[in-house]
Amino acid sequence: MQSKKPTLLRGMRDFAASQVFKRNYILDTIRHTYQKYGFLPLETPALEHLDTLTGKYGEEGDQLMFKILNSGDFLAGISDQIKDYKALSRQITAKGLRYDLTVPLMRYIAMNRNTLVFPFRRYQMQPVWRADRPQKGRYREFYQCDVDTVGTQSLLYEAEIIVMIHEVLLRLGIEDFTIHMNHRDVLKGLATLAGAADQAHALGAALDKLDKVGKDKVLEELKDKGFLPNALAKLMFIFDLPTTQKDRWAVLTKQLDSNQIGTREMQKILDYTHSLGLEEPSITLDLTLARGLSYYTGTVFEVKMKHLNWGSIGGGGRYDGLTGAFGQTGMSGVGFSFGVDRLYEVLEELNLWPSPLGYDTQVMLANLDHLSEQWALKVLATLRKNEIRAEIYPETVRLQKQLQYAQKRQIPFVAIIGSEEQTAGVVALKNMQTGAQKPCSLASLLQELS
Amino acid sequence: MQSKKPTLLRGMRDFAASQVFKRNYILDTIRHTYQKYGFLPLETPALEHLDTLTGKYGEEGDQLMFKILNSGDFLAGISDQIKDYKALSRQITAKGLRYDLTVPLMRYIAMNRNTLVFPFRRYQMQPVWRADRPQKGRYREFYQCDVDTVGTQSLLYEAEIIVMIHEVLLRLGIEDFTIHMNHRDVLKGLATLAGAADQAHALGAALDKLDKVGKDKVLEELKDKGFLPNALAKLMFIFDLPTTQKDRWAVLTKQLDSNQIGTREMQKILDYTHSLGLEEPSITLDLTLARGLSYYTGTVFEVKMKHLNWGSIGGGGRYDGLTGAFGQTGMSGVGFSFGVDRLYEVLEELNLWPSPLGYDTQVMLANLDHLSEQWALKVLATLRKNEIRAEIYPETVRLQKQLQYAQKRQIPFVAIIGSEEQTAGVVALKNMQTGAQKPCSLASLLQELS
Repeated sequence: MQSKKPTLLRGMRDFAASQVFKRNYILDTIRHTYQKYGFLPLETPALEHLDTLTGKYGEEGDQLMFKILNSGDFLAGISDQIKDYKALSRQITAKGLRYDLTVPLMRYIAMNRNTLVFPFRRYQMQPVWRADRPQKGRYREFYQCDVDTVGTQSLLYEAEIIVMIHEVLLRLGIEDFTIHMNHRDVLKGLATLAGAADQAHALGAALDKLDKVGKDKVLEELKDKGFLPNALAKLMFIFDLPTTQKDRWAVLTKQLDSNQIGTREMQKILDYTHSLGLEEPSITLDLTLARGLSYYTGTVFEVKMKHLNWGSIGGGGRYDGLTGAFGQTGMSGVGFSFGVDRLYEVLEELNLWPSPLGYDTQVMLANLDHLSEQWALKVLATLRKNEIRAEIYPETVRLQKQLQYAQKRQIPFVAIIGSEEQTAGVVALKNMQTGAQKPCSLASLLQELS
Repeated sequence: MQSKKPTLLRGMRDFAASQVFKRNYILDTIRHTYQKYGFLPLETPALEHLDTLTGKYGEEGDQLMFKILNSGDFLAGISDQIKDYKALSRQITAKGLRYDLTVPLMRYIAMNRNTLVFPFRRYQMQPVWRADRPQKGRYREFYQCDVDTVGTQSLLYEAEIIVMIHEVLLRLGIEDFTIHMNHRDVLKGLATLAGAADQAHALGAALDKLDKVGKDKVLEELKDKGFLPNALAKLMFIFDLPTTQKDRWAVLTKQLDSNQIGTREMQKILDYTHSLGLEEPSITLDLTLARGLSYYTGTVFEVKMKHLNWGSIGGGGRYDGLTGAFGQTGMSGVGFSFGVDRLYEVLEELNLWPSPLGYDTQVMLANLDHLSEQWALKVLATLRKNEIRAEIYPETVRLQKQLQYAQKRQIPFVAIIGSEEQTAGVVALKNMQTGAQKPCSLASLLQELS
């Protein structure tokens, strides 16, 4: 056994009670909204066949996946010629930790397509793991809160996602957000406009880095990829769209065919959003938005804070081909995911936590001596029968030490039962905030704490 | 990309909505009780340093641990002489999936001992992973619901565990349970009685298998371990204790010194249990109970159903040396853990689920045509503003198909807005159970569903 001081793994976190309460507040708010919109929960295992996971997220994703060493003699039957770690890795691992919640969903749908009801609408809130380089605000284990509808091309669900994002964020008190929206087909249109119709993917990949590397580096990358100067000139407008949404749409429909699929779909989504009662959604057309994951095929979303430059607090989009990877084509889906950590940081920064948040102990019973303890245990049982969160100090030590414990635990009341109180059939109730102490019958104690 | 039908890993499970609702009902009940008794939540990461995990659970535990292959070129700097898989494993893995929640708690306490308030009381409900041979009722990923108090030797907490077990199970409607109780020191006393004082551990290990292998095999194992026939004869009484608790205690105190630590502590715990209001706890003294994990040092518990021979639905005990593994001695702890899967099976078998359990959609709006859709979207927005869980069928298809969807999803009401209803400003509300349909104003619709 080791005896040196243990540590957490890099990029991994413990959550103490106050953090758990705050995180649960976020998770509960999201869950409540998802359920109100007709989505039902699904949970999938942390581990999946590597076959299921790999090849879905691009090369980077495959590299950042945590792989499980096979159990038992993992070298059995392996030629000792394998010196290449990648080749050996394929021989000695067959399981991996899930990298997101979308691919497990696709696996689930493929396995259960005969019994599921389509359109299949599920939400899923579970941790995912990525062997990413840990940095501020980026972790190797983090919760995703996904919501997806699979089995219909109806654009109503893009609109519902927009409405749900508004509901969740406004419930949390967050008003200062923008949903950035773009469409993969618009990216194609822009590539065509630049005379490079087959380079839509490269264009998207370059634009996606705008936030991180800036415009000049993006243009440089596009040049490297073969975009000619006069082609790039035609695209410069996407970096300087007008401020109002109306003017942005005007520019887009002027530059691209207004009957182009991407433009038409995004317009329809906005119409639906209005019909769903959202008169002025916080949406902006963002032609530089591409989203990294390669599986998106239609509209893509990303939610950002207007005045906090912290990257996105959520993102999503439509994907048409993902179930195809599991042998099922023609099943379109659209989804969105909130990142709990970013929401947490926003609520922390803007001080938006409600109070009280948690389920802390309401009263502690002091433990003065054997007789006092007997009385206190009876009171304790009564308090708990009345659903009051209560505990007793476990040992007969100095009262001062017991009060210090209650203070540090932030327990608001301490009930003390000395010989006087025993005779009078009351408890002395000490308010830990004010220090005031008053005799209290059991009935009024229950009333005080209920 | 693969295209064959994907599968789950052995011993891993998906949980569909109805299962998630049932599992959450169990988790919420446990959480509510733990919080009422003054315990606060803690969450720790799925992955820990292998250093932290290994050497705590015995050899079997180390073997059943899921280990993560190091990222990147895991062979770099490794001599290519390593042909032994165990030696190589140590070179190419440094992280593992948590095997239980107790060792991560000890790691957490060691890391935070200067800021934590002692006695530290936490509950933790998270999955753990074991590369066990999957079999009926045994999985490779499963939830544990732990509750522990660390930093005091007070036997009050053993009693609180007994009371909490009663409260959780009675809340769930489970009455037919027994808490089996024993004490490591009693096992020592029994070994001494058999003239093999230093063989207490071997005695416990053999007795622990009684449920699985039966009395004869246990005796055989003890013979193999060197217990002599006349020594074993002295122990035969432990297999045939009397039925009533009073008589059991009489036998124990007759056979062992009544002032023996184990006997004394268990008596004290029972006294506390009575003081806490539990007049007739469902406890039985079980001298064959040892519990596999080697870290227990005091009282041990295991909860079993009286009439379902399914193994335990929870277990725990006191451990004195566990923080010592992380460089901190003299910190006693006592804990208990419910197994969610066993509780689930018991509730399923005894049909104890309350109704309704979940958060299913309350009403679906049909989607007849463009105009109907416009109306329906407005109604939908109003329903949701009033916190009613509602959705709209996403496409304009035959009403029959839409009703089938609602039926399969078990949505109790469908609201239909045809041209007649539009003119009258009402919806036709169809009760999917009875088939009855009636016109309904928006106000009465809200009333009906609230």
